[in-house]
Formats: sequence, C-alpha cells, structure tokens
Amino acid sequence: MLKRYSYLLVAALLATATARAQTAPPETRPLLGFEPASAATELQLEKQFDAQLKADNLRQWMKRMAAHPHHVGSPYDKDNAEFMAALFKSWGYETRIDVSYVLFPTPKLRALELVAPTRYVAGLAEKPVAEDATSGQTAEQLPTYNAFSKDGDVTAELVFVNYGVPKDYEELERRGIDVKGKIVIAKYGGSWRGIKPKVAAEKGAIGCLIYSDPKDDGYAQGDVYPKGPFKPETGAQRGSVMDMPTFPGDPLTPGYGSTKNAKRLDLSKATTLTQIPCLPISYGDAQPLLAALAGPMAPADWRGALPIPYHLGPGPAKVHLQLAFNWKTEPIYNVIATLKGSTLADEWIMRGNHHDAWVNGASDPLSGMVAELEEARALGELVKTGWRPKRTIMFCAWDGEEPGLLGSTEWAETNAKAIQEHVVAYLNTDNSDRGFLGVSGSHTLEKFFNQVGRDVPDPEKAGMSIIERRRAYDLVEGSPDAQKDARDRPDLRIGALGAGSDYSPYIQHLGVPSMNVGFGGEGQGGEYHSIFDSFDDFTRFKDPTFAYGVALAQTMGRCVLRLADADVLPFEFQNFSNTVAKYGTEVKQLAETMRTETDKQAKLLTENRYEAVADPTKTLLPPKAKEAVPYLNFAPLDNALLKLEQSAQAYAQARKANSTLPAGRQKELDQLLYQAEQLLLSTEGLPRRPWYRHQIYAPGFYTGYGVKTLPGIREAVEERKWAEADEQIKRTAAAVERFSAQVSRAAAVAAPGPAQ
Amino acid sequence: MLKRYSYLLVAALLATATARAQTAPPETRPLLGFEPASAATELQLEKQFDAQLKADNLRQWMKRMAAHPHHVGSPYDKDNAEFMAALFKSWGYETRIDVSYVLFPTPKLRALELVAPTRYVAGLAEKPVAEDATSGQTAEQLPTYNAFSKDGDVTAELVFVNYGVPKDYEELERRGIDVKGKIVIAKYGGSWRGIKPKVAAEKGAIGCLIYSDPKDDGYAQGDVYPKGPFKPETGAQRGSVMDMPTFPGDPLTPGYGSTKNAKRLDLSKATTLTQIPCLPISYGDAQPLLAALAGPMAPADWRGALPIPYHLGPGPAKVHLQLAFNWKTEPIYNVIATLKGSTLADEWIMRGNHHDAWVNGASDPLSGMVAELEEARALGELVKTGWRPKRTIMFCAWDGEEPGLLGSTEWAETNAKAIQEHVVAYLNTDNSDRGFLGVSGSHTLEKFFNQVGRDVPDPEKAGMSIIERRRAYDLVEGSPDAQKDARDRPDLRIGALGAGSDYSPYIQHLGVPSMNVGFGGEGQGGEYHSIFDSFDDFTRFKDPTFAYGVALAQTMGRCVLRLADADVLPFEFQNFSNTVAKYGTEVKQLAETMRTETDKQAKLLTENRYEAVADPTKTLLPPKAKEAVPYLNFAPLDNALLKLEQSAQAYAQARKANSTLPAGRQKELDQLLYQAEQLLLSTEGLPRRPWYRHQIYAPGFYTGYGVKTLPGIREAVEERKWAEADEQIKRTAAAVERFSAQVSRAAAVAAPGPAQ
Repeated sequence: MLKRYSYLLVAALLATATARAQTAPPETRPLLGFEPASAATELQLEKQFDAQLKADNLRQWMKRMAAHPHHVGSPYDKDNAEFMAALFKSWGYETRIDVSYVLFPTPKLRALELVAPTRYVAGLAEKPVAEDATSGQTAEQLPTYNAFSKDGDVTAELVFVNYGVPKDYEELERRGIDVKGKIVIAKYGGSWRGIKPKVAAEKGAIGCLIYSDPKDDGYAQGDVYPKGPFKPETGAQRGSVMDMPTFPGDPLTPGYGSTKNAKRLDLSKATTLTQIPCLPISYGDAQPLLAALAGPMAPADWRGALPIPYHLGPGPAKVHLQLAFNWKTEPIYNVIATLKGSTLADEWIMRGNHHDAWVNGASDPLSGMVAELEEARALGELVKTGWRPKRTIMFCAWDGEEPGLLGSTEWAETNAKAIQEHVVAYLNTDNSDRGFLGVSGSHTLEKFFNQVGRDVPDPEKAGMSIIERRRAYDLVEGSPDAQKDARDRPDLRIGALGAGSDYSPYIQHLGVPSMNVGFGGEGQGGEYHSIFDSFDDFTRFKDPTFAYGVALAQTMGRCVLRLADADVLPFEFQNFSNTVAKYGTEVKQLAETMRTETDKQAKLLTENRYEAVADPTKTLLPPKAKEAVPYLNFAPLDNALLKLEQSAQAYAQARKANSTLPAGRQKELDQLLYQAEQLLLSTEGLPRRPWYRHQIYAPGFYTGYGVKTLPGIREAVEERKWAEADEQIKRTAAAVERFSAQVSRAAAVAAPGPAQ
Repeated sequence: MLKRYSYLLVAALLATATARAQTAPPETRPLLGFEPASAATELQLEKQFDAQLKADNLRQWMKRMAAHPHHVGSPYDKDNAEFMAALFKSWGYETRIDVSYVLFPTPKLRALELVAPTRYVAGLAEKPVAEDATSGQTAEQLPTYNAFSKDGDVTAELVFVNYGVPKDYEELERRGIDVKGKIVIAKYGGSWRGIKPKVAAEKGAIGCLIYSDPKDDGYAQGDVYPKGPFKPETGAQRGSVMDMPTFPGDPLTPGYGSTKNAKRLDLSKATTLTQIPCLPISYGDAQPLLAALAGPMAPADWRGALPIPYHLGPGPAKVHLQLAFNWKTEPIYNVIATLKGSTLADEWIMRGNHHDAWVNGASDPLSGMVAELEEARALGELVKTGWRPKRTIMFCAWDGEEPGLLGSTEWAETNAKAIQEHVVAYLNTDNSDRGFLGVSGSHTLEKFFNQVGRDVPDPEKAGMSIIERRRAYDLVEGSPDAQKDARDRPDLRIGALGAGSDYSPYIQHLGVPSMNVGFGGEGQGGEYHSIFDSFDDFTRFKDPTFAYGVALAQTMGRCVLRLADADVLPFEFQNFSNTVAKYGTEVKQLAETMRTETDKQAKLLTENRYEAVADPTKTLLPPKAKEAVPYLNFAPLDNALLKLEQSAQAYAQARKANSTLPAGRQKELDQLLYQAEQLLLSTEGLPRRPWYRHQIYAPGFYTGYGVKTLPGIREAVEERKWAEADEQIKRTAAAVERFSAQVSRAAAVAAPGPAQ
C-alpha cells in the first residue's frame, strides 16, 4: 500500500552517499558488526545467496497469487496464505498461520446521482478490458469503495475542495464558501485519502466524494490502460479511510489483539470510522458532477485536466449519496515462517510484506511479497548447505494490510511483550517496481543499510550500485537539500517512516528498529487499488523482467543475513544523531518562518491591503488574523541533542577500539542496542493519539502517510498550540536523553576492559 | 495590442511607492517643474479638466467605432479616422490625416488538414454567437491568420514544441527530437507570437501552427464566451508575426517613411517576413492534430488542458498546410490633431493610441482610444474658457498598429528630424480595462508620473489613489522584489518599455522620453484579436461602467497638462540612476548565476550523472556541454553609473536651490532635459538590429514584447557571446556617460547665478 502514493515523498527526503569507490576487493571488505574473519565468511555467503535468486520464481508466484482477487474475506486470500505456508514449509521453515478476527466492511449499497440541475446516475463500475486477463473477474471483485466509511444517505449541494486538506478550506473561507451541510468532492492526492473525509467532517460537510483527476492520474499523465499504464475513464481507487493517524488495526480492539474471543467494542463506539459517508469515484463519474457546479472559479492550482471550468460551487449541482455496508467480522491469515537461530535464538530478525490486495494486487502487494518468498527460498537452500543463522529469522506474510494494517497491527498487539523482548529489527517491503532505491527507517540502521546497498548492483546500470544510482538521481533531480547531502554526506540519508505499510505498529507503537525498502520512479501507472493492478499490467509497465524484484531480494536478503550473523548487531548512532539534529533545526526554522509570515500578514491586515486589492465584483475576504508566534524554549531539546552526539561518538570510539568482544558481552551489548529504540517511546504517546508513542517518527495527523519527524513538537507548532509545543519539546528531549543514556551504557559495554 | 499579453509581465516588474499621506490640501501641493504659484493654478485647471470627463462619451464612441470591423484597408478603418478627425476639428484642433502606403497581406488561401494517420480538415473559422451583436459580420471580418507569414504549401509530420521558445527546443533535443523538415505546433503564450515561427525556422521547421490552449486561454480559465469571457472552441487569435524585434513598420521601407513615392524594396528582399508559413488555429482545430501525435510524452509543464495525452511526435500525425496571401499595398490613416502652445510652441507633447483593429477591436485598441478622445475634448473645453497650453499638444490616432506598428513607425521615420528637435515626450495608451495601474516608460519621468498617479483616485476604492492601490497589489501579490520596493521605495518603480505598441519607434529608435499606461488585472477574457473583442464583450466583462476609462483619461490628461504647462519640464534623474544601477546589478547577477549553473552542469556531465539517471526504456540525452562563463569587465559600466548618480544628484540640488529661473534659461534647460534621452541611443544600434538604438531599453530578440534592459549587454550574456558582451558593456557605458554629461550641463544651467 505504501509506495504508490509516497514514493516521491520518500524520494524528496532522501539523499545518497558520495560513493567511495570500493578499492578493496569484496572478499576483504569490512562490514559493520563483523570481525574481519566473519566478514569474509559473510560476503562469501551473500554470493551463494545471490546465486540462488531466480527472476522466474517471482514471475510464476506473482502470476499464481494474482490469478484471482484476494482481498480480506475472499476464498483466494486464504488460498494464497496456505500456498505460501506450504512453500515456507517445503523450504524447511517452522511455519504457522496465525488467525485474527477483524471488522471488515464491504458494500451492501452504493448509490450516487446528480439530482440537480440535471440528472446523472454514476456508474461506479470499472470497465474490464480484453487486453487484461483478470480484469473481467467481476463476480470476485470488490466494488469500488472506501473501507471504514460509515453508512449514510445524504443529499446536498456539492462543493469542490481541491485535495481536501486544511489549507484548501482556508482558501474556500476566503471566498465565502462554507461546506457545512454540503457534500464535498475532493481529488485524490495531496494527502493520504483518509484525511479528506476526516477534515471534511471537521468542517461540517455531510458527505465526501474522492475522485482521481486525469491531471494527476489519467490521460494528462500519458496513454490510458490498456494502450498505456494510466487510469482509464472508469478507473477508481479503492482504499481505506479508517482514521489510521489515530490508530491502525481493528477499530473494535484498540491497542490489543483481535483474537477470537477478545472483548470487542460495539460498532457505535468505534472511533476510527469516518464521521461521514465517503465514496471514491472515477473521473468519468466526476465530470458531470463538477461540470454542474457554478460559483467562483477554483484557484488556478486546484484545477485538473477535465475539459471543463472548475467551479467551486456550492451548487447548483446537488447530489444524492447513499452507502450501506456489511459490517462483518472476517478471519485474516498471517503466515509466520521461522528459521531458528543457532547461538542467539532469542534475538529475532523479522522480515515482512503483506499478501492481501484490494483486487488482484500484482503490484500492491505481490511485487514485494514474491521478492520476500524468493529470499526465504534462497536461505532455505543455504541451510541445505549446512549454514544456520546465529539469530532467529522470521518471514511474515501479513493479511488485511489494505483495510488498515490489520494483520500486522493485531499480531503486534497480540505479541507485544515477546516482540519488545526479542525483535532486533523489522524489515518491510510492499509494492515495488523499476527505477530508484527508496528507503526509509530507523537512522540507527542508516550506516548499516548504506553498506548493504553499496553491495547491490543496479539492474539497469552496469557497475553501479543501487546507492550510487540513487545519489545520481538526487544530484540531477533532487531538491537543493538532497543535492547538498549527495555531495557532502558520506552516507545516503534515508527517509523517516510515516505510515502506509506494516512497519507502522513495530516502529511507532513498539519501538522496534524498522526499515521499509522499495524501488520506483520508472514504473508508471494508474492501476493502484483498481482491477487493473494485474499480472498483465505489471509485466507490461512495472518491472517486466522482474530484475528489480531480484534486486529487492538481494537487498533485503543481505539485510536479513547480516543482521542474523553479525558478531555484534550493526547499529550505529552518529548518523542518527546527525539526522535528529537536522530535524531539530527544521522545527526551529519552521517556527521562525511562521513568525515572519504571521507578522507580515498581520501588517497587511492592519493596513487593509487585502481590501485594497480585492475585486469588488468578486468575494475574496482577507485571511483570518493569526496569533503572533511566541519564542519557544528549545533549550531542553538542544541539550538532549548534545548528549546524543556525545554518546554516539563514545559508542563509535568504543567499537573502533575494541572490535572483538567476548561472547557474553556481545549478547549484553546486542540487547542494549536493539532495545534502545524503545526508549524513544513515551508512555503517554502523542497528543490525542496515545497509540503512537515514538517521539522521533510518526505519520502526520493531517497528512496520513506523510511522516512528521519530532511529531509532538512539529505538529504543535504547525497547529499553533504554543503551550503544547513547549510541553512536547520537554517530552521529546526526555526521550532523547533516555536513548542517549542507553547508548552510553552500550559504549561502556563495548569499551575495552571489563564491562561496567 | 500591448497589454492583453504583457500586463502581467509589466505587473511583475513594477512596484509601488510607500504613500506619504497627502497632509497638505491639494491646492498647495508642490508639483515637479512648477513654481508654487503656477502649481496652484495647475491643480485648479486639473479640477476643471476632471469635471469635463464623461463616461458616456467613452461608451458612445466605443460603440460607434466598434460597430464594424476596422482593420487596415477596410472601409470602416478610414471611416473611423475621418470620424475622429471631425471630432478633433469640432473641439478646436488643427487636424490632419497623414496617409502612408504600407504592405498589408491578407489571406487568399488558408488550408490545413491532418492527412495521416486519420483525416481531419480544420475549420479555421470562428463561430459567431447570438449574444454578440457584431460577431456575425462575417463578410467584413478578416479570417484568422498571422500577418506577414510568407506564402507556403507544405506537408510534413507534426511536432509539439510547447511555446516554441529556444529552451523548448533544448528539451526536444534531449529527447532526440529534431524539427528539421517538420511542421511544428506551438501554444500561444510564453513569448510574443512572432518569436515562434522565427525560432522554428532557425531550427529547420518548414511550417508553424500556433494555437490557444484552453489551459492558457479557454475553459480552464473560466466559462467560455458568451456565458463567460474566455475563448470558445472555435476562437483563434489573429496577429502579426512580422519580425518586429529586428525592426517594426513597413517591411519594404526599412528605416524611412513609406510615403506615396518612397522607394520600396522588392517583396523578395523583405527581411521581416517569416521564413516559413505560419497560421493561428483554435483549440477545436488543434485537438485532433495533437491527439494524433505519438512519441514521448511532453514534459509535465508543457501539457495543456485538452482531454488528451500530450505527445511530442514527430508524427504519426502528418499535416498539410497551405497559405497564400494578397500582398497589397494599402493606405493607412494617421489622425494628427494639434493644439498650438502659447509661449513654447516648438516643444511638443505627443499623446497617442492606435485606432485600427484586427476585427471590431472594442478593447484593443478602442478602450484606450476613446479615453484619448475624451481627454482631447476636455482640453478643448478648457480652451473655450480661455486657457492655452504653454507647449504644443498633439493628439495622434495611429493606423496599422496591429500588423506591425505601421502608422506610428512610418510617421516617426517620415518626421524623424522634427520629432527629435521638438518632441518632449510621447504618451501612449492601448487596450485597457479594469483593475490595477500598469505603467512603463522612461525613468526620467518616473517621479513625475508618481505625482500624477497620486492625484488620480481609484474608481473602485474610495479615498485611494491608483498608485496606492497598485502598491497594495505589489505588497499582497507581488514578487519578493516588488514587495520590497513597495515597502522601501518612496516612488512606484515603473516598468521598462519593450515593444507591442506605438511608443516603440519613439523611444527605441528616436530616443523620445515615452510612457505607456493602462489598467488591468480585473477585466478578463479570451477575446484578444478575435471576433469576440466587441462592444458587447467589453461592456460585459472588461470595464462595464467605463470608470477605468475615465481614470485613464484623468491620468493621461494630467500627464499632458503638466508637461504642457510646467515652468521647467519635470524630468528628474535620481530615480533613473537608481533604476539603471539596478539593471547593472541584474546583468552581473545573471552572469554569476549562469557561471554557477554551467559549472554545476559540467560536473554532472563529467561524472556521467545524467546517463546514470536515464531510464533505458526512454530517450533522455544529457544536456549539451556549455562553454564556461568567463569573468566580464563591468568596470566601464560601474564607472558610468557612478557619474550618472553624481550628475543626477547635482541636478536635483541645483533645482532645489533655484526653483525660479528666468524664461530664457527655462527654455535652454527644457531642451537639455527632453533631448537627454537621445544621448542614450548608439549610432550603431543593437547587434544584428541597428534600428533599435536605445542602450537601456529594447524588446527582447527572443521575447518580442518582453523588454530587455541594458539589451546589448544582457542579450550577449544570455546568448553566451562573451566578446560581444565586453564590447556592449563599453558601448552602453559610453551612452550613459554621454547622458550624464548632458545632465551635468542641465545642472549647470539650473544652478543659481549666470548659466555657464
């Protein structure tokens, strides 16, 4: 579910390392966490691993698993789970299918019509195409809908709200347009979809339509399916609108596992359903509705590529929207395959991807899932040669990711204690195609990942690593910041994790060091969450040779192998310190910029400049006056960041001074290292959403997928809650202090001489 | 012809003055060039002038003159000239109609069809609408065409070239697309239209189509005519494609007047016709052509609002374009109405606007023309009360502006000597509607104009002057530069004059201080140069009450009155010095930026970064390597600018010290002042276009309307002609030195004691 929306977002945050040409021959390359001898063995092992990987396996498995729709509750969803479990077993894994029971609404009734000034009944159906073998499986397909929209039957005037994010409503207010009692129509994009009905309801709207404008996802991007990869006239994007920024997982079991007999909330008590009915539609269905709007023209940058003037309304377009859902509880099937570690069996390396889809899901999620399967098969082959990992390796195939990270979240909540005790890292993938590396995660693993990525060749560019190619991208296409990093920073700066895939419960709720990796930027399409996300589409437009699927397996397999076999876990804290310091600078700069902007606007307001400029024949009210931005006390954060820098440096020096450690100390050190991230959690969690406990990374309350770093501080500032900002600075600083203390302990254990 | 295209361009360049609240009552306000006593008289006179202005006159004259198409060679063109001449006579002006004889091509044959892969025959006709009384005068209308396109009959594959400016062809080259032997289709906008066939021919294209994309000028802007003001499906923009950046006026009489018996070049020798056939079309006709293109997608920011994927081609779309014109010589009628000055009759104040149109021309040019008529009538009324101007006032109504500034240029070339001897200033208007002041001109008149504008109330904002409202616009909507000027600069910074209306020959060829003034930003529409530029359209969407037409008359009337009656001509040189210094900083910054960009690109090229990023399934070649930017010797310019600053200051002090001058010295001073601008001309003119002699202001060789300040230097740098740049720095510096010397002479004459 993640990358189709957030790849570019991640891309914008990333920068790549200035490549040091690998002068030393691979065999003797030093590896973080490995003593020289074991490094050589490891690199040898990785060669054998690579040799096992076969693109054709990925192709066959994708074709098989995408052969039918396999959403939650469908026969083929269970069938795929059992198919994978059988594979894992056949490769020598202890394999089980953990079942949870989750709320999963499906449409009982969907009706949308324009009732004034003219009549139009929306088709609400994607038209199969002959060139796509599975697009005609109409009987098995879920109709186009937004999961966890509430039921509703509303009729009201329509208002066009651009992407439906808060600043769009400020523009509407300036034009004298209030959505109270109206139905809004928003474009997909600009935020995670669930934000749109959430904000619309906050503003008093009674219904929400979301459509894919051809400017963002249709003919304006290129030829439409099947001639090209882009969204055809009837294509519509399914997807969840559950309020995941508050908490993901089963809405009826907040914070605990939805086991068979778990206590469940009454549906009426569920807090993460939408407040208003919400339906996704195609641009074919949107055009008659938008064309019937009058009122002021939408601001220029709101307008899409439909051949009409984009008016805002309200009305005269009046629409009737009726939605009713089957609010059933369905079983979901998480496949867990374990390869027990030899010497450090109670340290677990978790590797996961989801297997459920909205329809056939070739790209989302199978493109990542089949890479994971091939990694598991290749490791199985290594085991046959006598190798065993030091640490335990778990391959997970999650169900129910699409409706709201259901499988991963419920499994995480059910097994929280064991996870926090044992899990060293969680390594996630999701849909992935052709092009450039996109990587986000815990920055304590940044240096480790840079070493991994530097050893994986780019499939399209001979002699170039996936990291080097990514750096080239940042130098040529990147933001000034990204260009600077790519020139000056030895390591690629990886992105921060927001939400949108199964890592979320592990990092943000449990404090497990996590990563999410994929490739993209060259694969194209509008197939996302539609009947056109098929094997035919993927092999035509996404990654036809599966070369990048194999590269993904090489990358994630290396991550697993190195984490499983390292002498000491390859965590490193100076890159983390450098990155958190950057976040600190950003939030300070944010407050400064808001101060300048607020003062400037206040002056223009006092001078009545907006009235002076306003065209008397149009409505354009001055912006609302905003409270001046006070100076905030960032000292606690600055002090904590200083300690972080010092402890990180101390640990680096200790490791350098003392690469060999007695086994006992290694184990002690391991635990300090992988549990450090848990100290970045606060017991209270973030304001108004205690499920999110990580003080460094969280999905934005008003962006959804989009990450907010130092979220407590940043969102308080963005929302102009000054007292809360001061409070959150202290809370975040405290978390950083706890973390630094742990790093200092690790430094002491890693230091020469007896452990303190 | 000017403002419809360049208003925003001008707007972007302007900034407004921080208003000093007019504490003193108007009656005693000091006026530049007036001694206190005469200032009071002048202000009294202006009150009487304002009292004369009647919006209904503007309305009636526009209705009358827009009642039929009145392009060059049409009966109604001559009829309008005679109508105006009669009016001027009736108001007491010595009036004559000066006739020139100019080349004016009209279509004999226009054919455009798509011949492959499917067939489509372009309609090439604007569809009249019932709601527009004159749009149905089909028999009298010129068809849609580009004047001074050469004849041609070509068939070739089509290539989409965005706006068809040089950087667009760089993008095409990177995609491996060559337009040699092809027909290009370009969007209107991004440059003056004449640039498009000029650049296309330079690149080897054999034909050029220009269409108005609905994104820029159609439904994407708002409701289309007649429901709204924007361009309907069949609307097409007529207009000249003569190479005016080389020289305007009759192509057969370069640099001299096209009098009845003037020696004329053979048509085959004319250098300002296009090199390839060129035709404007509607988006209705463009869509089938563009939809038939294949090849790579156009870059995202090239794509318009037609409901198709914008491919670049070449082909498979193949088009046949055939054009043939009647190359006739037509008489044009310049109306010249003179009010002789009392004491300084040989100092002429010229006020002009054109009267010819492409069709009915309500907005372009009559909106400005009727304001000028009302100014003349009001002055006539003042004469009846016994007033006479000190200096001679000339009201001009030019013919043949649309095809290429024919009337104004030929008149200027015919009367060059008298103009340079006598003309104090040329004050131009053209189409004007509702909203914000737009003013460009000689910066030696900047302070003068600020005083004028501060005395003209904005029709829509009680108690606010047109200058104050413009400042508000810049503060709220302006660029950071404009905002800074609006906060910090006492006077509005007026724009610089490019081309696009009748001031061009006066300022750029003869060095007459000139201004161009209009209002815009609130009137909207796609009527420009179409059958929909009608009285109905203007009174519905442009300036329904003619309130801004009256404001324009108040503004220009004040300019005329103050220039005519000032004790000493109100030229001032410190604002000019400040502005030219700013231009100097800009060209230096331009060279710096180009150096940085060139170095950065060179590094990426050496490192093969572009190849690293390229998608192997697409063609995207690295950009061409560019020669490094050398350091240029700006010292001559800097030294000249220093002298300019000193002489300007000296003149200001002399005037302050000695506001009263004996009549003899006033006359001597006047002449030094108004002829100073002629010293900014170089005898050689600009490289490759000697007709343009002004070293500070010129239309861009590759922008057309768009001005280039310090054009010799700026364009040499932009085109990376480094030797020429050093040469032009010297030449421009010499012009500034000549000018400064004249200002010093003026300071000496203005200084207390006997003139030196």
